[in-house]
Amino acid sequence: MNIKIVLKMISLLLLIIAGFMVVPAGIAAYCRETASLYSFLYTIAGTLTISVFFLFLFRKVKSNKLSTRDGFLFVTGSWVFASFCGALPFYLSDCIPSFTNAFFETISGFSTTGASILTGTDTLPRSMLFWRSLTHWLGGMGIVVLAVAILPLLGIGGMQLIKAEAPGPTIDKLTPRITETAKLLWYIYTGLTVIETLLLMAGGMGLYDALTHTFGTLATGGFSTKNTSVGHFNSAYIDYVITFFMIIAGVNFILHFNLLTGRYKSLFKDTEFKAYLLIFLFSTILVTLNLHGHMYDSIEKSFRYASFQCATILTTTGFATTDYEKWPYFSQMILFMLMFVGGCSGSTGGGIKVIRIVTLFKQALNEMNLLLHPRGVFTLRIRKAAVRKNIVYAISGFFFLYIVLLLIVTSVVAFSGHDLLTAFTASLATVGNIGPGFGRVGPTENYAFFEDYVKWVLSFGMLTGRLELYTVLVLFTPRFWR
Amino acid sequence: MNIKIVLKMISLLLLIIAGFMVVPAGIAAYCRETASLYSFLYTIAGTLTISVFFLFLFRKVKSNKLSTRDGFLFVTGSWVFASFCGALPFYLSDCIPSFTNAFFETISGFSTTGASILTGTDTLPRSMLFWRSLTHWLGGMGIVVLAVAILPLLGIGGMQLIKAEAPGPTIDKLTPRITETAKLLWYIYTGLTVIETLLLMAGGMGLYDALTHTFGTLATGGFSTKNTSVGHFNSAYIDYVITFFMIIAGVNFILHFNLLTGRYKSLFKDTEFKAYLLIFLFSTILVTLNLHGHMYDSIEKSFRYASFQCATILTTTGFATTDYEKWPYFSQMILFMLMFVGGCSGSTGGGIKVIRIVTLFKQALNEMNLLLHPRGVFTLRIRKAAVRKNIVYAISGFFFLYIVLLLIVTSVVAFSGHDLLTAFTASLATVGNIGPGFGRVGPTENYAFFEDYVKWVLSFGMLTGRLELYTVLVLFTPRFWR
Repeated sequence: MNIKIVLKMISLLLLIIAGFMVVPAGIAAYCRETASLYSFLYTIAGTLTISVFFLFLFRKVKSNKLSTRDGFLFVTGSWVFASFCGALPFYLSDCIPSFTNAFFETISGFSTTGASILTGTDTLPRSMLFWRSLTHWLGGMGIVVLAVAILPLLGIGGMQLIKAEAPGPTIDKLTPRITETAKLLWYIYTGLTVIETLLLMAGGMGLYDALTHTFGTLATGGFSTKNTSVGHFNSAYIDYVITFFMIIAGVNFILHFNLLTGRYKSLFKDTEFKAYLLIFLFSTILVTLNLHGHMYDSIEKSFRYASFQCATILTTTGFATTDYEKWPYFSQMILFMLMFVGGCSGSTGGGIKVIRIVTLFKQALNEMNLLLHPRGVFTLRIRKAAVRKNIVYAISGFFFLYIVLLLIVTSVVAFSGHDLLTAFTASLATVGNIGPGFGRVGPTENYAFFEDYVKWVLSFGMLTGRLELYTVLVLFTPRFWR
Repeated sequence: MNIKIVLKMISLLLLIIAGFMVVPAGIAAYCRETASLYSFLYTIAGTLTISVFFLFLFRKVKSNKLSTRDGFLFVTGSWVFASFCGALPFYLSDCIPSFTNAFFETISGFSTTGASILTGTDTLPRSMLFWRSLTHWLGGMGIVVLAVAILPLLGIGGMQLIKAEAPGPTIDKLTPRITETAKLLWYIYTGLTVIETLLLMAGGMGLYDALTHTFGTLATGGFSTKNTSVGHFNSAYIDYVITFFMIIAGVNFILHFNLLTGRYKSLFKDTEFKAYLLIFLFSTILVTLNLHGHMYDSIEKSFRYASFQCATILTTTGFATTDYEKWPYFSQMILFMLMFVGGCSGSTGGGIKVIRIVTLFKQALNEMNLLLHPRGVFTLRIRKAAVRKNIVYAISGFFFLYIVLLLIVTSVVAFSGHDLLTAFTASLATVGNIGPGFGRVGPTENYAFFEDYVKWVLSFGMLTGRLELYTVLVLFTPRFWR
């Protein structure tokens, strides 16, 4: 392991984050939010000093000699240090007086979870709310680069499938270098940001609201600047725009690239994308029918709320337009099941990911065929290509660890005296990077009431879930440090 | 497929069940329960007629030509037809006026689940309660034979590991023929029944209560003849005896055989047994400490209730000595987690089974090693022997299907308007063959309030969980019927 490279690269990353912090600092100056302005400036200054110090110290260390091990440490370290650094403005300005809360809110932002400890979001200064939404946007971008360009190289939990699956340019074909890929992805991400912001403004939102909600959408994050989330705007147009972009954000970004370059067919040849759309449509139809009978008289209104809530949970965004805990239990159950799925690989969505679910289903079917023909040879195929056995292995291991992590986090939450439903869905909503769950962490509630140590464990859950488990968990094996 | 052999063998099985029904019929005669007596006699007569008819019709069909396919149909058919036949006395005597309820109660018995629709058990005639407990005992015996002698041959979900794992005589070495193995297992099972019955009688129970509760214990079933289950007796001695025998019943019966033949060492060389004991002890200690602070003043009392409830859930028995829903949430959470584990393979316990959990853990660790050394070769070992990859595959497939089945059953329950906690744990408690769950299906509640179609789906869950999923699910693949 080469700790110097890792430190150098994390310093570089913190430099970028400090750079982005100039934007909310500008907003603070413009809105005359003095306390916020100073807290941003102090954070920027502190981060700059430390980063530059390390960059100078390790100026001769070449960063292209990153080993796999360094990769794990760098990725996990990035999210942890970014969250520490990002939490400082909240803490220093006294907007969030507890550091635990500030850290929870920030890692919830960078991990694009959207679980909040704020009891009233609109009491916060505008610059702070902007920074809070910006952490989503930065985290989402980081995740896309990570998922498309880095994780497949590290061989995390079957995500090599992104390479196999992507019909058009695979990572290596697309561009040989990670930085090039990253650049292309930034263009797509920024482009989508501009389009959604404009569309939201066309629906009557101000620039500030449009931008912050776009950040929350494209990162599948879910932080809103309003107490009642997207429900505040009470506009069918805005609901549909955000629904559409949440679904877009949950799609593998390689497919967006293909679409841009005219390879439309590749979209509907993609197993994961088709499964993802089917899951979304099927659950939306079921919930619409269920709501139409019980909640709303109009089928259009039922569809609007159903599609929004299904999209927000499936893509692990976590925006809300209504309190789904008041829905009939069947609709709640559909949302509960969607919490186990998540977005597509290579998207900003969290959760287990559609491709893993598809692979596991196919494998289970294969097992049944094998029972009937014990000597038969059954190959697992995704988009007509055979999937190597070690990839299926990795995915099985991932699924098991995911369930185990869910149960462990649940038990910690339950330990502090919370009921099973709250504990289990708080675990599911943080590890899956969704945000809201059921019970006391429902869509109209928040995470403020939890004990400090529970918040740290949930933060760990967000981090681990976000980085596809292995990236974080591998650091806890003795072999890693040998 | 040879449907004639299957029908012939099921007829033979029903003959045996009709034979056992003579015992409760005798009790009915002795206790002058006329309605019950007639319902038993009618059922016996009807079953005899049909069985003998089929046996005569297919007298020339040789039953040793059973193919793998026939095996699946026979095993699933056995439990279904046995439950239909076993439900008749309840229904004909009007003790359980709804046939859905009678069937639910009987398949709950034969599948050793112990989920009941009775709102007051002690209102039933003694002969009926005896028959109810006897279904446990018969189902438990069937499961042991199935798990030790048949499933490994059929290659179900990694259960070939029983062969690999069992340190002493493997199935093939023990005896070459299934019937011989079955006989040996009967001896052990009957021997344990006699010992536990005597020990319970020594604690002041009458023969009737001792016998019925022994049936419930050794089958890890959980039906009691008392409204308040084992808590009725309020005796530390009885609690400890039942705890001990629940743990015994959750152990692979091959190990019991080894113990009887003096191979003591094999016990502690067995990976699954060690893991099983560790899980039990560890959870008991945690719950004891948690209860001591919050529920009971005496540490002994805390230990007594903790060990009983941990054993009853881990082994999927489902007896109760107290209402654990009144316990602190942390203790509830431990029980919730134990619901995912289950007994050892080759025992009467249900659930996922300890060996599968152990294998999946080892596989997940291997995956992490592989991340650090992508070209390394890591072999998964259970008791120092390498586990073949296809077995790990089968286990992964099983685990995934188990979680999917849980979610599907949950959604059906939720559809009829029940809250998530009730729906999820009712699913967990039936698919895992446990009996009690949380919420409206807690240890002091019952399943009577569910709609009829929910009861049929839960019955399906009990059957499928009991027969290790694949045995039942494979019947739903088009390939099976080709």
